[in-house]
This record gives sequence, C-alpha cells and structure tokens, in this order.
Amino acid sequence: MHISRTSKSLVFITMGDPSGIGPEIIMKAMASPEVMGLAIFVIVGDQFIFESLSHIVKEKGFFLQVTKDLAGIREDAINIIDPGPVLAEDIFRKPSNEGSLKALRCLEAAVGFGSEENAAKSVLVTAPVSKERIAEISPGFVGHTEYLREADGADMVTMVLTGESMCVVPVTRHIPLGDVTKHINEEYLFKTLVQVVDNRELITGKRDPKIAVAALNPHAGEGGKIGTEEKEIIMPAIERAKKVYPEIEGPVPADVVFYKAVKKEYDIVVSMYHDQCLAPFKMLDFDSGVNVTLGLGYVRTSPDHGTAFDIAGKGIANPRSMIEAIKLAVRAVT
Amino acid sequence: MHISRTSKSLVFITMGDPSGIGPEIIMKAMASPEVMGLAIFVIVGDQFIFESLSHIVKEKGFFLQVTKDLAGIREDAINIIDPGPVLAEDIFRKPSNEGSLKALRCLEAAVGFGSEENAAKSVLVTAPVSKERIAEISPGFVGHTEYLREADGADMVTMVLTGESMCVVPVTRHIPLGDVTKHINEEYLFKTLVQVVDNRELITGKRDPKIAVAALNPHAGEGGKIGTEEKEIIMPAIERAKKVYPEIEGPVPADVVFYKAVKKEYDIVVSMYHDQCLAPFKMLDFDSGVNVTLGLGYVRTSPDHGTAFDIAGKGIANPRSMIEAIKLAVRAVT
Repeated sequence: MHISRTSKSLVFITMGDPSGIGPEIIMKAMASPEVMGLAIFVIVGDQFIFESLSHIVKEKGFFLQVTKDLAGIREDAINIIDPGPVLAEDIFRKPSNEGSLKALRCLEAAVGFGSEENAAKSVLVTAPVSKERIAEISPGFVGHTEYLREADGADMVTMVLTGESMCVVPVTRHIPLGDVTKHINEEYLFKTLVQVVDNRELITGKRDPKIAVAALNPHAGEGGKIGTEEKEIIMPAIERAKKVYPEIEGPVPADVVFYKAVKKEYDIVVSMYHDQCLAPFKMLDFDSGVNVTLGLGYVRTSPDHGTAFDIAGKGIANPRSMIEAIKLAVRAVT
Repeated sequence: MHISRTSKSLVFITMGDPSGIGPEIIMKAMASPEVMGLAIFVIVGDQFIFESLSHIVKEKGFFLQVTKDLAGIREDAINIIDPGPVLAEDIFRKPSNEGSLKALRCLEAAVGFGSEENAAKSVLVTAPVSKERIAEISPGFVGHTEYLREADGADMVTMVLTGESMCVVPVTRHIPLGDVTKHINEEYLFKTLVQVVDNRELITGKRDPKIAVAALNPHAGEGGKIGTEEKEIIMPAIERAKKVYPEIEGPVPADVVFYKAVKKEYDIVVSMYHDQCLAPFKMLDFDSGVNVTLGLGYVRTSPDHGTAFDIAGKGIANPRSMIEAIKLAVRAVT
C-alpha cells in the first residue's frame, strides 16, 4: 500500500451519524490549514455524502478519492472508504435507521482497519453519533467509549476531556449519582491515575503536568465528618500513584479544584463522577472540548459535542472541536 | 431609640473570627461609597479591634461610636455594640479559643437584637468564622446557616449563593455524596423552590427571573436509564412549583445548566447537592460571591469566603464580597 513508503501516520475518521454535523465538520477540518498535511486521512463514511461536500476541500486544492481498502490509500488525497451500502440522497437529510446503521458500520469497519497489521501506527477520530438512535437498531450500544473498549477487549478505559480552559478525567461515567460511591475503590482509582500519568504528555502537551484529584464529598469530607471516602479510598490511591509520578495532589475539594485549574495551578483534574467535572468543563469549553479514550490498543479522540441534528446540512457547524480532536490524535502517533 | 425617627433600615453585622479578615473587610465596606448611607449599621463586635481599625473609616469622614444597646444607636455613626468581654491586644493576632468564643457571643447577641420588637426592619450580615474552631468550644456548631435556623426555630432554610456570573441554590448541603439521594424528596424540593420563588427579586434583582432546576444524574437520567430521580422526584416537584411561578425549567443536565446560566439563559440554578453548584460557582465567582439564607424571620447574608487567617491583619483583604453582602441585605429591607 502507498503508506508503507511514508513516515506519515494514518488517521481514521468515522463519519458519525450522516444526518448530524459529522460529515460537515470533518470536511471543514480537512480544509483547515491547522490539519492539512499532518497525516494521511482515511474517512470511513458514506461515499455519496462526502462527495456532495467535496466543494469544501476542493477550494483549498484538495481532492477526495474513494478506495475499497487500505491498499488503495493515497497520501496526496483525502481518502474515503465506504463499507456500504451507499445511502440514498434523501436519507441524510433527517435522522433515520438507515443512517444510524451506516454510522455503526463505519465504526465497525474503522476498528477493523485499525487492527490490521500494516496500520499499526494509526489513530481513530470519531464524529458524533446518536447513541439513543443506534441503540434502537443495536440494543446495548451505550456509546463510542464502551463499544471500543469491548471491541478492543480492554480491561478498563479512561475518558479524558481536554479543552482550552482545563483537562478533566471522570473516574466514573454514566451511572446514577446514587451508585457513585459503590463504584469508587482504591484499585480502580489507582489504575485510572496510572493511565492518566502514562498519557500525561499526550493529553496536556507538557512533560511534567500537575495532576489534581478531586474529593468525593463536600469540603473533601472535612476530616471524616462529611464522608470517609477521602481517607479510606482516595488518599491511599493517591499515595500509591505518587510513587509512579510525584506531581499528584489531592483530594482537593471540588469547589476549589476547578477554580485552581482555570488559574492554571493544575493541568489535569481527575474527578470522581461525571457531573463533578463535566459541569465546570462544559461551562468554559462547551464547543472546543476533545474527548480522548485511553486504555485501548490505540488512541481515540472525538469532538465533545453531539450530532446537532438541528443545524446539520446548513453549513454553519463549527469544526473547532473536530480540528482539535484530529490534532490531538496526530500527536499520539508522531 | 434614634432609629425610630428614621425610615432607614437597620443592618446588624457580626464581626466573625477576630483573627480572620472579618473586621478589616467590615471596615473597608463601611468606608466604601457603595455602602455609605444605605442604612444604619450596627457592628456587633469587639470594641478594641474596631477602634484599632477606625482609621479606615476616619479618612472618609466617618466615626465609630460604641453603645451598649439599641437605644444608643446613632444614624450618623458606625455603631459598635460589644457583648464583651473586650479582647486583649495580643489575642486578635492569631486564632484562639478566646477569639472563637467572642465570635460566637457576637453572633448570639446579634440574633438577640434582631428579635427585639423595635428592630423588626433589620437584616443580618455575618463575617466569616472558623466553624471548626467554634465547634471546639461549642460542640455541635456546624456553621452560621444551621445555627441561625435553630435559633430562629425555622422548619427549613435555603442557602443561596449569588455572584457576578450566576446565582445557585444547593438543595442539600454538607452531607456525604453517598447520602444525597436519600435526602432529595419531592416535598423538600418543592418547598425549596417556593422559598426561592418567594425571594426571587431579592436574590436576582429581577421581577421575573428564569429558574432552572439541575438534574441529579448524568444526562438528566437519560429517560430513566441512568437513575430514576428525575422522573419520580424532580419533575413532579417542578410541576407543582410551576403552578406557583411558571418560569421554572428542568430537570436540566448539570453539564448544560451552568453553561446556560453563564450565558444568562437562566438567572437562578437550583441544584441537587453542594459540589454540583459550588464547583461551577466558585470557579467564576470565587472572591465575589454572597451567601444568602432564606427561611429565617429575617434575611441573612454573608461573604462567600472564609476567615483567611493567612492574610488577616495585613490590610490586603478584598472587601468586595462583604460589600455585595451588605448591599443585598439592604435590598431585603428597602
């Protein structure tokens, strides 16, 4: 295949839901001076949809080429691989089961290509899907992160969100608030910290970033008066992790840690549950965030926003988050 | 007493811990053009300490007068009532049990004055105390809010935090995260919403503010997949509260609601637990926040920061939050 002659990395990008803004922000990112030339890009998506958006890249002197497999990839083109079937023209104008199915097939295909031996130096960028819509045709689908963990056979994965203002890691994710304390234990927190430490330069761009661990309870438990998890779980996990990497602080009360992160006193905030970090994070980085999955055999990134069905097809979608997701993915393999 | 001849309101201000920044920010606020003349101010605090800080107000043409009781209050002075005993010179230079005790006595005295019949048109502003230090000499003291609720015999009180960026209301406060779901029920949430609705103009300055209610679970429970409290508790409480005041929305996912609040789509965010709203709030309004207690027989406000023992006595404490606390308190009685 062509790429064997180059040192450039291979970035697979899945289309996401074809009725969402995914295809548009992918093409806008391809046409961006920040992204062009960084790597060889392989979009796993619907041939018809991307050809209909080809004017976005043509203006910048790029062209699309459709190929059936990795052997046909060209370094001087934006490559499209369509796992088929090609969608009918009217299908991508509103959410449909055919569109959801195609999104899922593209994801499956991209994971398959990524595991091919000659594509070892590859990363995956995923455009947004509607997990509710995919779950309708593929029960049990709860989102990219869990899908990829299962496909990869990974023991555990860590979700990282990076933005202009801060970088956060929710230790637990999509579980009821009442179940959070059951899911936090020393071993799991320690392993999460190690995955973050191992990837600290990738996610922050710094060699020695400061990592803060948020407390679980108000005022970090106030010495045990408002909960004991800080003493019994969080502090022991931090002590173990500090032996691997000393620049870890905590448990820091949640109403202090994000304030300090915004002031750049911390580079990464490891947080106990979804809303604890997502609320502060999205408040400042709503449109620019990048979601990174650690713990797979490769790095996967995605923009931290949804399909935005309401503005799809209007040409007004902001590609900033997708551009940042691609840049971060490229950093993982260069 | 002098104040019976005037239409001005009476603002009681407790000194807080004498070794903290309380006395300094009170005097700086008294000297501020935003505060001067707004009301009759009665500082319940240590005579010696405030006399030693009198130069702050003298420069602006004000003077302190010490009086034993409400009958001696003068409209043209900054009034000091000292419940005694006066502290020794060296005591206020570092935290001490004598200082904590004096802080508590000032609070007790202020509550007593506030309940006197001829002081009905009064409000209370409290400077910071160290609740840990007071608890050492008065076991069971967990903070101003609970102390005042008990002293007032109030059934329930609501804590509101207002700042430049947003206004938030934690429905539950200083309890372990694992206990939050046990404490949230429809009746309690409904009553909290009614207290907020009844005081909406006071806390926002708007007649018809938009009130958002945050969800408890990630993604507002995703239709019951990630927790059922939204359907079973929060939505029914909101429906009931909307009959009292229709401008209430929710449950809104926590990772969206604060983002929208910052964009001024919501004026008040009613939140399910301490860190859910305190983390976003303090991130933006760390130094300017005001804490308001609703549900007492009077309105109580305070700056939303601590004693700051480390910078006390240096003359560098920022009085902004105290100034805002006083202005808001005055608004409650004018």
